[in-house]
Amino acid sequence: MAMMLVVYRSPKDPEAFDQHYFNIHVPLAKRLPGIIRYQTSKGTILPLAGAGETYLIGLLHFGSLSAIKEAFASDIGKACAADRRKFAPNDEDVQMFLFDDQEV
Amino acid sequence: MAMMLVVYRSPKDPEAFDQHYFNIHVPLAKRLPGIIRYQTSKGTILPLAGAGETYLIGLLHFGSLSAIKEAFASDIGKACAADRRKFAPNDEDVQMFLFDDQEV
Repeated sequence: MAMMLVVYRSPKDPEAFDQHYFNIHVPLAKRLPGIIRYQTSKGTILPLAGAGETYLIGLLHFGSLSAIKEAFASDIGKACAADRRKFAPNDEDVQMFLFDDQEV
Repeated sequence: MAMMLVVYRSPKDPEAFDQHYFNIHVPLAKRLPGIIRYQTSKGTILPLAGAGETYLIGLLHFGSLSAIKEAFASDIGKACAADRRKFAPNDEDVQMFLFDDQEV
């Protein structure tokens, strides 16, 4: 299994962010080829150590890292990337991490 | 359900980091009261947008955010925090996020 982890900094307009994220971005991303599960943070995120103020975390699960890369090379994947720039326009607004995962 | 997400920057000595993390830290953290599941990244992490170079991601699952707080207030929790400083001594080496999660 593999994950795409997305960490969003606090937006200027949280209400507009929520509207766009949950009503437009999530339904679009759930159409990504190969997506198995989509989780988000719920409510306030407590950041510790070197973590800055954070508004929302998304966790998209796929079968493998290569499946994630294929998903984001698809038309839906390109639409997701373009849509993300509408509610988190700057690269410093968001950290994204793609990785295979394991149980330990 | 709730998660503790831990994002580690690339260490100076990856082999020493791995030895400590997988042989000492993981077995200790799996003794945290209330921990349900422990996942880590496996292999290379691909960072995108505002994410910096990242070496390892840990994801600890609990029943609720309050269960995470109780776990880290316990003796094992304090030992975990102290142990983390041995292989990731500086706050800028690590980002930690605690949050309740939901399926979307």
